[in-house]
Amino acid sequence: MALAQSEIKQRVQRAQDLMIELDIDLAIITPGINFRYLTNQQAVALERLTALVISQQNQWLLVPHLEFHQAQELHQDIEVLSWQETEDPYQICFSLSANAKNIALDDKMPFFHVARFQKSLDVKYHSFAIISEQLRSVKSPAEIRELELVSAAINRVHSKITDLKFLNRTEKDLAKEIKDLILLEHQAVDFVIVAAGTNSANPHHQVGERVIASGDVIVIDIGGTSSSGYCSDCTRTYAVNKVDKQFEASFDLLLRAQQLGVDLAQAGLAAEQLDGLVREELAKNDLAQWFSHRLGHGIGMETHETPYLVSGNKQILKPGNVFSIEPGFYIPGKWGARIEDIVALTDTGLINLNNFEHNLRIVS
Amino acid sequence: MALAQSEIKQRVQRAQDLMIELDIDLAIITPGINFRYLTNQQAVALERLTALVISQQNQWLLVPHLEFHQAQELHQDIEVLSWQETEDPYQICFSLSANAKNIALDDKMPFFHVARFQKSLDVKYHSFAIISEQLRSVKSPAEIRELELVSAAINRVHSKITDLKFLNRTEKDLAKEIKDLILLEHQAVDFVIVAAGTNSANPHHQVGERVIASGDVIVIDIGGTSSSGYCSDCTRTYAVNKVDKQFEASFDLLLRAQQLGVDLAQAGLAAEQLDGLVREELAKNDLAQWFSHRLGHGIGMETHETPYLVSGNKQILKPGNVFSIEPGFYIPGKWGARIEDIVALTDTGLINLNNFEHNLRIVS
Repeated sequence: MALAQSEIKQRVQRAQDLMIELDIDLAIITPGINFRYLTNQQAVALERLTALVISQQNQWLLVPHLEFHQAQELHQDIEVLSWQETEDPYQICFSLSANAKNIALDDKMPFFHVARFQKSLDVKYHSFAIISEQLRSVKSPAEIRELELVSAAINRVHSKITDLKFLNRTEKDLAKEIKDLILLEHQAVDFVIVAAGTNSANPHHQVGERVIASGDVIVIDIGGTSSSGYCSDCTRTYAVNKVDKQFEASFDLLLRAQQLGVDLAQAGLAAEQLDGLVREELAKNDLAQWFSHRLGHGIGMETHETPYLVSGNKQILKPGNVFSIEPGFYIPGKWGARIEDIVALTDTGLINLNNFEHNLRIVS
Repeated sequence: MALAQSEIKQRVQRAQDLMIELDIDLAIITPGINFRYLTNQQAVALERLTALVISQQNQWLLVPHLEFHQAQELHQDIEVLSWQETEDPYQICFSLSANAKNIALDDKMPFFHVARFQKSLDVKYHSFAIISEQLRSVKSPAEIRELELVSAAINRVHSKITDLKFLNRTEKDLAKEIKDLILLEHQAVDFVIVAAGTNSANPHHQVGERVIASGDVIVIDIGGTSSSGYCSDCTRTYAVNKVDKQFEASFDLLLRAQQLGVDLAQAGLAAEQLDGLVREELAKNDLAQWFSHRLGHGIGMETHETPYLVSGNKQILKPGNVFSIEPGFYIPGKWGARIEDIVALTDTGLINLNNFEHNLRIVS
């Protein structure tokens, strides 16, 4: 609840402006990230329908009657409606804008709710993503501040990881200790990837029973959520005691390519262009063939959100966008590496939220 | 991972039998509870499509290429397919059953995936709930055993709660200690309701800053999930030091009504009938007007699932059903109470999984 109520009001206003622009009569938002973004409440998604209903002029919060009084206390500024166990809550939503022709349903709304809404054939259903992606991908200064804070937290975790004992421990065991370090700095752990030795060649390896040996390369990709609801995500590559010369040469190229990505990131560039530029740099030395995923993803109240830096995405980057730049190489049966920073584009230039040592981190 | 692989195979077979019966050509299951139920894997729902695709004869697992090798290792029995960053995974699903006319989409599938599937106009889309509810509401003996184990765990938590200090602590502070007790016995805490004094009149009150005073009634409704993925849920009502005579009289009626619910629960009864019978008992003493929610809900790998014991639900209870019996009364501005047990219907009769003291628990 670190954000001011005025910020929430502005968000709803921006959503309504976009609804007018896109000719959406009604938006129905169920508990999840969009709901939290627009109400400041972290509601739990259960089988009974809870929904923030927004028209071009108004908004209502519909809750099961069980939760009516609590919702009223929490939301002094919104008209709270409730439905009894034997009423049809979907009908109540429709009745709030009887002539709605275009309805946007929350992009994360579970299908069992969607199917109940979609019974009316006179209505066209859109994904609320057409609105929420425009809203949420452009961060306000207050949001960038929250992302700076949570990124600083994950930076501290990486700096503590350097001091941990690696040798002869399983990935799982090490990951458990890293989880505790993340929890000291965040409200929740979102993910911990500890990929050692040949496992480092798997970009989405989680953790397993592999025992860490001298000479292992280890990709550590970690993230958590702050109490205000913003996410961190940062990858560094570690090596135990010693480094293979051939790996080191590849890693140096990766380091240069990642730095190039950070240097070139700017408003006005298409998302796929930045991906392409980094890929070209890696191609100079034959590494691009082992870079098997997109360059990056937006981040905010979700770890992965728009803009995605991927071939085919012509979306133009703009001030307020916050995203990862995370090239890697993954050579099956051999090794892998990744370096990931979160960067924020602002009116006055780029801020690197994970601006600390990128070199291979030697541990023991 | 406590369940045998053979149990998983049987589940998929039962799903396919139901698909034939209901004329569903293809079922598409995204990460979530149904996915775990049918694959034994707790996959994470991200923006890239991961789906278990079941036809009447076959099954495939489609994953982003990033996760291909990991998925192959994990699922030796399923054909694993993968899609590259620039491919259309939705099209790949359709291609697995080119002439599909009826497709069931996971009932929890987020709308942004649903909308991508729903582009084909020649297909009718159904909620996979028509299959999963039939499957998951009838528990196997192995599942009932898992539910017995996790219920025994929550029973131990309630017995430890009796020894805690209540007086002069906030609900929030007490709830924190209860969370730690749940975590000692479960893999995850699902919810902790500590509703003291007038807050007890709010059935879905979570926790707040209210300081617990002598004479307070406290409703404590708690649950967690075991490492095998099964949920506990149990409510007892506590009183601090002393009890109001009028409250005690009402509570005795509630106790009788709840016991009646457990005694009458049996295969062959409609879900709404059991709700009605307990409501009638409470009506004899004017308490029914304050019983503002349904009698109960099914429980398994989700805390709330079918069958729901609610007016209007004519579904016939049958062996394998596991559900809560949780009448309560809630008098605004005054107080409330609830008693909740989970019961399992088996071929040889009912098992009460929370069969320990139901009386008002006096604490200090």
